[in-house]
Formats: sequence, structure tokens, C-alpha cells
Amino acid sequence: MTARPPKRIDPSGVSDLPDRLQEIIRRRNTVLGPGYQFSETIPVEFVSGFGAHLVDREGNDYLDAFNNVQGVGHSHRHVADAVSRQIASINTDTRYPQEALVVYAERLLATFPAELSKLSLPCTGSEANDLAVRVARFHTGGEGIIVTRWAFHGRTREVASFSPMLGAGSPLGPNVRLITAPDPRLCASEQSLENYMREQVRTAINDLNRHGYRLAALIADSAFTSDGIFTHPVGFMQAMVDEVHAAGGLHIADEVQSGFAQLGDSMWGFSRHGVVPDIVTMGKAIGNGFPISGVAFRPEVSDEFGQKVSYFNTLGGRSLSVAAASAVLDVFEQENVRGRVVVNGATLLAGLDTLTRNSPYVSEIRGSGLYLGIEIVKNRETIEPDPIRCENIIKDLRDRRVLISRTGPAGNVLKVRPPVAFTAADVSRLLETFAAVAKLLL
Amino acid sequence: MTARPPKRIDPSGVSDLPDRLQEIIRRRNTVLGPGYQFSETIPVEFVSGFGAHLVDREGNDYLDAFNNVQGVGHSHRHVADAVSRQIASINTDTRYPQEALVVYAERLLATFPAELSKLSLPCTGSEANDLAVRVARFHTGGEGIIVTRWAFHGRTREVASFSPMLGAGSPLGPNVRLITAPDPRLCASEQSLENYMREQVRTAINDLNRHGYRLAALIADSAFTSDGIFTHPVGFMQAMVDEVHAAGGLHIADEVQSGFAQLGDSMWGFSRHGVVPDIVTMGKAIGNGFPISGVAFRPEVSDEFGQKVSYFNTLGGRSLSVAAASAVLDVFEQENVRGRVVVNGATLLAGLDTLTRNSPYVSEIRGSGLYLGIEIVKNRETIEPDPIRCENIIKDLRDRRVLISRTGPAGNVLKVRPPVAFTAADVSRLLETFAAVAKLLL
Repeated sequence: MTARPPKRIDPSGVSDLPDRLQEIIRRRNTVLGPGYQFSETIPVEFVSGFGAHLVDREGNDYLDAFNNVQGVGHSHRHVADAVSRQIASINTDTRYPQEALVVYAERLLATFPAELSKLSLPCTGSEANDLAVRVARFHTGGEGIIVTRWAFHGRTREVASFSPMLGAGSPLGPNVRLITAPDPRLCASEQSLENYMREQVRTAINDLNRHGYRLAALIADSAFTSDGIFTHPVGFMQAMVDEVHAAGGLHIADEVQSGFAQLGDSMWGFSRHGVVPDIVTMGKAIGNGFPISGVAFRPEVSDEFGQKVSYFNTLGGRSLSVAAASAVLDVFEQENVRGRVVVNGATLLAGLDTLTRNSPYVSEIRGSGLYLGIEIVKNRETIEPDPIRCENIIKDLRDRRVLISRTGPAGNVLKVRPPVAFTAADVSRLLETFAAVAKLLL
Repeated sequence: MTARPPKRIDPSGVSDLPDRLQEIIRRRNTVLGPGYQFSETIPVEFVSGFGAHLVDREGNDYLDAFNNVQGVGHSHRHVADAVSRQIASINTDTRYPQEALVVYAERLLATFPAELSKLSLPCTGSEANDLAVRVARFHTGGEGIIVTRWAFHGRTREVASFSPMLGAGSPLGPNVRLITAPDPRLCASEQSLENYMREQVRTAINDLNRHGYRLAALIADSAFTSDGIFTHPVGFMQAMVDEVHAAGGLHIADEVQSGFAQLGDSMWGFSRHGVVPDIVTMGKAIGNGFPISGVAFRPEVSDEFGQKVSYFNTLGGRSLSVAAASAVLDVFEQENVRGRVVVNGATLLAGLDTLTRNSPYVSEIRGSGLYLGIEIVKNRETIEPDPIRCENIIKDLRDRRVLISRTGPAGNVLKVRPPVAFTAADVSRLLETFAAVAKLLL
């Protein structure tokens, strides 16, 4: 299995696009180069946004069920006002005392189990995972890393070395071992899923040791989203973590995708599994589109690193970043975000299930809260992936102005991942639009 | 030589601080942990800023000759307005067409030699250097990295592995070789400095090869700031780069410190040396405190990486980041920033030279534009470093409300590094204040 090729769009191939857009694409290809891709679908130029809505240059309103970085909503007024106020007054780094930074850290840590009592604030999810693993290596003295087979944790060189989703062009480290994500269809029962996952971790540790690597960490997305979204059952993780701890390693929960109430059941994906990680990384919705990320540590894991190495990020945890992130927490409190995710997510899941239950091309609907996956296959018996049909559904939805994406190693799992700002009306619109494209599933 | 220990401040040891500040420090130590340090001096809580001025809670105005991230000035109105406008409308990532992103890339690249024609936009200087070296490794197939002896390029695991300034707690990679910074006192003439640097690069390459590493890159801060600030003479770098190219490696110019006109002579520090790097990294002043960074590439170096690996940074190059960075370029054009740096830097250098010329404790003043270093020694013959006297000067200046810092492996080079917004009046105030503390140099 290799990564899907980059979507570099050649303007000569999209002559049905407006001239303006072709010109932007041409100039963009000139200055940004081939590393910059477009979203799955034919590009749309958005000029404003609100809630889960993006508006294009012609004034068309798209329902955004894909971009969840702006978790509390595109251009949310409370966040915008907080950033605007802050940037007009002061923006010092963390080498200066800022009461707001301390208050923010206290508020954010209060959403975690008490064991996770120390916070660092880098700028991106990649930096958060890079720091987490750097601390894990320092603390354990080990180098071995265990991730899932199609994991994506970011793009620094270190993090790319344990992000197999990046494909063959980006080599995995010799210290990295892959395990299969917790797909319950691979096992006869919940108990056997736990054993299956435990056994895989044990095998990976043995193989690392055999090659001279002691374990540093198991790092896992708590919803296994890039592997295809595996949210149920829960409860098997403690067995994996026990193996990791027995080998002297740490459990790092990557909550960049699953955190900030995206899964509805709880603020953090790991909580659903009843485990308390050693390190937790956060990104995306933490700043509603402002570049900030976070790492929460058990102090016994991070304090020595702090004393002997230290961590300073010039652009992380500045007054402006803290203003954005604090405003996001305000909105979570003021707008009952988590409660709404639970209700709207359940309605959305039930509606999608009804629409696809009898399709010969849908093998499974998975997910929790507002992170849902619909697995598209050639037939339900063989569950052979059908990424082409998957892409056609995405295109058809986009033509009807609803944005979703896809995930999984074969690219055949429709990814419905709206911002947590998604309302009941948004759910209705998504379901109505999905009903109109469901002919592709008959 | 080891790194200076972290400045973790225990509130019980600073009982002369206001209660409010002691309380912030106590709570901060609880939630942020020991990895978070304070600035060199006793902490001051700043609540607003303008130009090169920071204002504390009591309304005292400090002259900021240290924090140059807000290059065009603290809370600059034009940047603040641009960010405020943008955050209220739209903030998409680079997977969507944004005309403003393309225009920004064109404008920024126009400040570079034509060979550097492709741009990527991460969020931090660390991410920029990490990407640069990742591309260099991919392009060359080599792994060897050459840096200066006290280099600092950032804090991802990869970048920390070639940032010896981080000290013994942060291990260097086995693929990393160190060379001494271009201190002209080590050589009899300019020609011999060139030969000295060339020979060091050659020796490093040979040693890398002997250990099985082919060269990937020489990465160098164009003003060698962490090594103690070495800006003169120029002209020796081409010889180093020739050696690097002959070995199949790339030259990465780290302009996080020396870029955006900080050195006055030119927008980019490498231009002073008459070289055209293969990759250039930018940070700090690029966003005036907004988390954005940049990497400019020769396309022949980056295009294959772009095609086969790609690079997407969820939080890099978004509409909001581009709005901040574009506004910074506006100010550079509107306010003749570079011209002012040249004039004010020259006045500052001449004034400091006059004030310290006869001191038995000042061995040298170095620097260019608004990046100056004053080397403090126990006596001028032995040039034995005197970090204690250095620190006392910084403290005395801080008590008189002028902020500077120090650099170099021994921590004995006063670092005068104001934002490029520094005015003629600011220069006068700095010189007057420095005159008042010059008794420490008699």
C-alpha cells in the first residue's frame, strides 16, 4: 500500500474553472512548487465563513463537514475579538510573566486527569508530537517507537519517521515498528481484540529489542483516524499500555484529531478508553485556526527533561496565542459545545446509517461524536475497498456544496469530520444532501 | 563548555518582587514545569507595547533592544489591523486557493536572488530548519550535517541534534560535525580566514565520510549570532560553499536571526557574503510575532521532494498567517525600514564604540545593522571571558529600563538586538543609558 499521489492541479487541465482561479493556480504552482496540494476536490476559493459554513466568491454557501481546525466555527466572533484586542496591546513570549498564560494552562489542564499536570505550548501538532517523543526518548533512554500501520503524526523529520501514511517517499526510522489498527472484524470478540492488540505490541517490543532498540513510546491517535477511524469498542488500550510500561516505554496519546470534544463522549479521546496516558498532544481546534498546539505531561516524565534540556518556543505560548486558545475554551464553556456534539453526532450517525444500511457498497459506518467514517467497498462480502466510488461521492457532495473527505490506507472511508460548531440544522442539511447522492450507493 | 543552566525562578527567592508577580511565578512553576525559563533578568510583567517600547503594569516604559520578533514594532497598528480584519472573515489552509497566499509568496521571493524561486510556509523557525534539512537529506541522499560549534537552529529532535548550544542534555547526532565560527582573530588575514573556514569544512566532510556519512548540508546562521556574532569580514563563505557542493551537499542559510534587514546592509544576511544558498530559512520578524516561518528553495533542490513526499502544514500559510506576514512586508516598504536600520545601526555602533573603546574589559565590538555584540573580558590581552561582568551590565541596564541580552559559548558577549523599528530617539536613549552603566567597564 502506498500513499495517494499529491493533488497538484495543472491549470491547463481545469479549463472549466473560472479564468481567475486558473490564473491563481498557475501563479501558485510557480511560487509554491509541487509540494503544495489542493484539497481532494476541484478547488473552490472561499472568501468568508461562519459556523460550519464557507462562502465562495460568488456568494455560494458550502457546508463544511471536513475542516475541523476552526472547531468552534469559522471566524468565530469571540475568538476574533480576543485576538484583535490582544494584538493591539501586547504579545510577549513565555520568557516574560503573563498571567493569562498561567490561567490558560490551569484551565486547559483542568480538563485532564490530575496525573497530567504540566503543559508545554508549541505551535503545531507536528511540534507537539516531536516534543512528546523527544521527552519520551530522554526519559526512557530508549529509541523504539510503535505506531499503527497507517498512522500520521506530523511532518518534522522525527515525526515523519513514524508517520507511515506519508508513503514510500518518506522513510520510516529503523527504530519504528507498525501494528495493525484495532479493527474489531479481525477478532472474534472484544476480549480477543484486546489480546490481539496486546500481542501486537508485545511482538513489536520483542522485535525492537532483538534489533537493539529499547522502547521509548507507543504513540497512538485515540480514534485511529488515519487508519480508517476505529472508535469502537473501547477498553482494549489498557492492555497495550501495560505492555508498553512493562517494557519501560511511555504511552503518548495523540489528540490532534480526537481531542477538544470531537468524539463527543469526552473532551479527550483517550478518556473513552479508560486510560491515563503519560503524555498527551493537542493541535487543530486548540486555537480555532491560530497556530498553537499543546503537550500535557505527567511531571515524573517531563521534569528532568525540563531541568536538563529545557524547552523554549519563541512563537509558542505568546500572549496572542494564549488569547486565541483562551477564547476557544470560553466558547466551549459558553456554548455547551460538548453537549451539542453528543446530540448532533448521534443524529448524524443515525441518519447516515439509515441512508446507507441497505447499500451493497457500504460495509460499515464507524465513529463517535462528530468524527464519522463510512467504509465504501466493492461488495459487502469481500469488503474489497472502492476508493473510486468513494471519491465520486465526495465530488458529488461537493457539487452540492457539502465538503467531506476520505481516509484509511485504501482511501475508501468517507470521512465526515465537521467542526464541533456543527448545528442541528447543519446535520439536517448534510443528511438531505447525502440522501440526494445516495444513488451512487445503490 | 556547557550550556548555561535554565533560569527557573523560585518565587521564594525573589521576595522583593511584587506579591502579584510572586504569585504568577508560583502558579506558573506549578503548571508549566521547569522547562519554562524566564528572560535573563528579573522578570517584568509587560502589559502593552509600541515601537521598540514595552510598558509594565505600573506604566514604566522599557526600551526593548532585545526582542526583535516584533521587528516592525510591538503591536504595530498596520499588522494588528490586517490580522483583525482577516480573522473576522476567513482563515483557510493552503489546500484551498488563496490569492493572498500567492501574492505574498511572489512578494517575498522577489526579495531573493532569482535562483531561490520556491517557497514553503511552516509556522516556526524550528519547523523551517527541520524541513530544510529534510529536503537536503532527500535531495542529496546524504546524512552528514555541518554546523558551527555553538550553533542554535531550533528544537525539533532533528534540529536539536545539530544545535550544540542546547548543551550536554541534548545529544548531537552521530552525523553532525562542528566547525569553529569565523572569528578573524584566529587568522592572520582575510585570505587566511577564508582558508581556515574552507579547511574546517573539508576536514569535517572527510571525517563524516570516514564514518560512513555522505554530506547532506552545511547549515549556518549568516551572522553566526549564537557563536558570538561574527559579521566581518565578509567574503569567505563561497569557499566553504564550494567545498560543500564538491562533496554533493547543500548550503542552507539560516536567516531566522539575520534576515528581514536586521543586519542593515541587505534584506538577507547571506547577501553580504556574496553567496546564493540552496535553501534559506526564515522566522522571527517574518510575522511580527505571529507564528509563521518560511523556507525558500532552489527548485532543482526541492521539486522532487515536493512531488514524491509533499509538504502540508495545517497551520502554516493559512489566510491569517499570510495577512500578518503581508502586512509586515507592507511596513518594510512604507516605512523605509532597511534604510533606517542602516542609519540607526551605524549611529548605535559608533556610539557604543566611543563609550567602550578605552575599557580594559571590552575586547571587541562586532556586528552589522541592528545586531551588535560587545565582548566582555577579564583583560584585553588574554581575552578571558567575563560572563559575570556581562550579566551585571545587563542587570544594571534593566534597572534603568533598557533590555538587552548576551550570547556566545561563554555568555560574555552583550547582545544588542533591537527590533528593526528602532528609531534615532531610541538609539539616543540606549546610548545615554549605556553611558550611565559604563562605570562597570572602568
